[in-house]
Amino acid sequence: MQSQHSPQTVGQAGEFAVIAAAVAATDGGPDPRVVVDTGDDAAVLRAGDGTVTVCTDMLVEGRHFRLDWSAPADVGHKAIAQNAADIAAMGAVPTGFTVALACPAETDVRVAVEIQRGLAAGAAAAGARVVGGDLVQAGQIVVSVTALGDLQGRAPLTRAGARPGATVALAGRLGHGAAGLAALAAGHRGPETAAVRAAHLRPAPPYAAGPAAARAGAQALIDVSDGLLADLGHIARASSVRIDLDAAALARAAADPDLRAAAEALGDDPLDWVLTGGEDHGLVGAFDPQTRLPDGFTPIGRVRAAGPDGAHVTVGGTRRAEVGGWRAFDAAAE
Amino acid sequence: MQSQHSPQTVGQAGEFAVIAAAVAATDGGPDPRVVVDTGDDAAVLRAGDGTVTVCTDMLVEGRHFRLDWSAPADVGHKAIAQNAADIAAMGAVPTGFTVALACPAETDVRVAVEIQRGLAAGAAAAGARVVGGDLVQAGQIVVSVTALGDLQGRAPLTRAGARPGATVALAGRLGHGAAGLAALAAGHRGPETAAVRAAHLRPAPPYAAGPAAARAGAQALIDVSDGLLADLGHIARASSVRIDLDAAALARAAADPDLRAAAEALGDDPLDWVLTGGEDHGLVGAFDPQTRLPDGFTPIGRVRAAGPDGAHVTVGGTRRAEVGGWRAFDAAAE
Repeated sequence: MQSQHSPQTVGQAGEFAVIAAAVAATDGGPDPRVVVDTGDDAAVLRAGDGTVTVCTDMLVEGRHFRLDWSAPADVGHKAIAQNAADIAAMGAVPTGFTVALACPAETDVRVAVEIQRGLAAGAAAAGARVVGGDLVQAGQIVVSVTALGDLQGRAPLTRAGARPGATVALAGRLGHGAAGLAALAAGHRGPETAAVRAAHLRPAPPYAAGPAAARAGAQALIDVSDGLLADLGHIARASSVRIDLDAAALARAAADPDLRAAAEALGDDPLDWVLTGGEDHGLVGAFDPQTRLPDGFTPIGRVRAAGPDGAHVTVGGTRRAEVGGWRAFDAAAE
Repeated sequence: MQSQHSPQTVGQAGEFAVIAAAVAATDGGPDPRVVVDTGDDAAVLRAGDGTVTVCTDMLVEGRHFRLDWSAPADVGHKAIAQNAADIAAMGAVPTGFTVALACPAETDVRVAVEIQRGLAAGAAAAGARVVGGDLVQAGQIVVSVTALGDLQGRAPLTRAGARPGATVALAGRLGHGAAGLAALAAGHRGPETAAVRAAHLRPAPPYAAGPAAARAGAQALIDVSDGLLADLGHIARASSVRIDLDAAALARAAADPDLRAAAEALGDDPLDWVLTGGEDHGLVGAFDPQTRLPDGFTPIGRVRAAGPDGAHVTVGGTRRAEVGGWRAFDAAAE
């Protein structure tokens, strides 16, 4: 008699069995900041300095990820990374994450568990744990993450506060995630694009650069999630300044060997990825010109007074449209 | 020439326009607990006692709500209520909410804005504000809410801690939401079920009863989200006790005039709704028998030592299966 090894679905296993399997697979061990862990009505975390920093982001299958491109664990990893980068962009350190996961009942249990393994691994990479969640049925996979963070007594680094004369500096990569997405969309699977595809699937934001920027007295900070021009546009408008990027610094970023290899393979211009690609979650901000930049930051421009044409971003003094970047919605069909 | 007044879709308007419309419609005014408000990488809230209580719940269109039954604002209201009830069940007060909302591009902008109005109104009813969010495209509407809370220096009320001899007491309603769901499913729209339908669409958890229970020294507390038997089963197992419900107290709950009217109209047994209906988010817990119960709590049973057959729930000494209640997943089709 042959035994059957058909994969079990989430619907067959049920919510509690899947959660138990995921918890067993992802137990991160004790964390002194966790007062009440997952499994009760709510979790309780320490908030050492009397504040909590919080943000949320949702990833939708077919829209923000495709399971023929991403392994399930990649999806979890990315969902954590983009939230933890927002915490870092305030100058805070992540202290915990909650996760709501929706999937169709016919989803293989292993897919649901692997997504949660990726969430746990991503959380560990960001220095914290998943402390609570929800698992529900939907027509497509949806991962919603909320990240909590601790400013450790520092003032929050908002988008406002950049002053004329400040140095604009960046930590982390630019354009790699966008190049990887272009390679995946083009069906390119060669070694020339391996590094950028990995960067797209598993972004590695420079988390420590956020608190370091705060300790160095940064005036403003943002993570590059919509594209460099678009995100610096947010700082320019919130701070009522013009931000002028240094064309030579951008050219150096575009000359990165991985970007050049991908650009040659795909016939694209790497500078477009550098200016409008968002998914690397680098951190970019404004620093007093007298400040020694924290490790990992490179100067890429300067804050200027806004002229009569308003607060915006220029490259070498010339205005660039904030083209590209991420759009949350496709134009709806008629 | 006739002017066209076709409704604008979320896809046509775009993410930022919809968010701006929602923010304008829902501005709750200043809150001294909000250090950094929506619109930056993350929000910053005060966490007065050095801890933060956090939980998350996701509602999916067609699964947790139907827009032919619920007004869009009802959906937002309910998403907040079930999260805020979890915060109250820890003995905490809500301090803020983050929301991730997914919807199809062809969704009418007014639907997206009304959902967010409902979220804002639900948050105000719970004594706090929405401080951040995300809006993305998906194939169906998904609302994911994370609630943050402040224990105000009290110890968290977990599911563990109930001791033999304690009084089991309930604040809030039982079975009304389940009765309302039964009426909606049966297509009953008469006055006999109007009250329970409203209770299903807009649950009104007794938020203040959570902190009141904590101040009264409650041993354990949970919100009734899966059904009274199922949720007290969580306390019984976490506390390693048996919980014996008083049949007369349950009969009194089932004799509620709104439940009786609905039961007569639908030909159902109101006691089933009382024992297995979850969506009213009442708060039920264990109190030292010497304690004066806080306002709003009614005794409904007693904690007993667990016998050789384990930790579970009985009614008048007889074990009841934890039937009914909410299942996150339908059994998957083959």
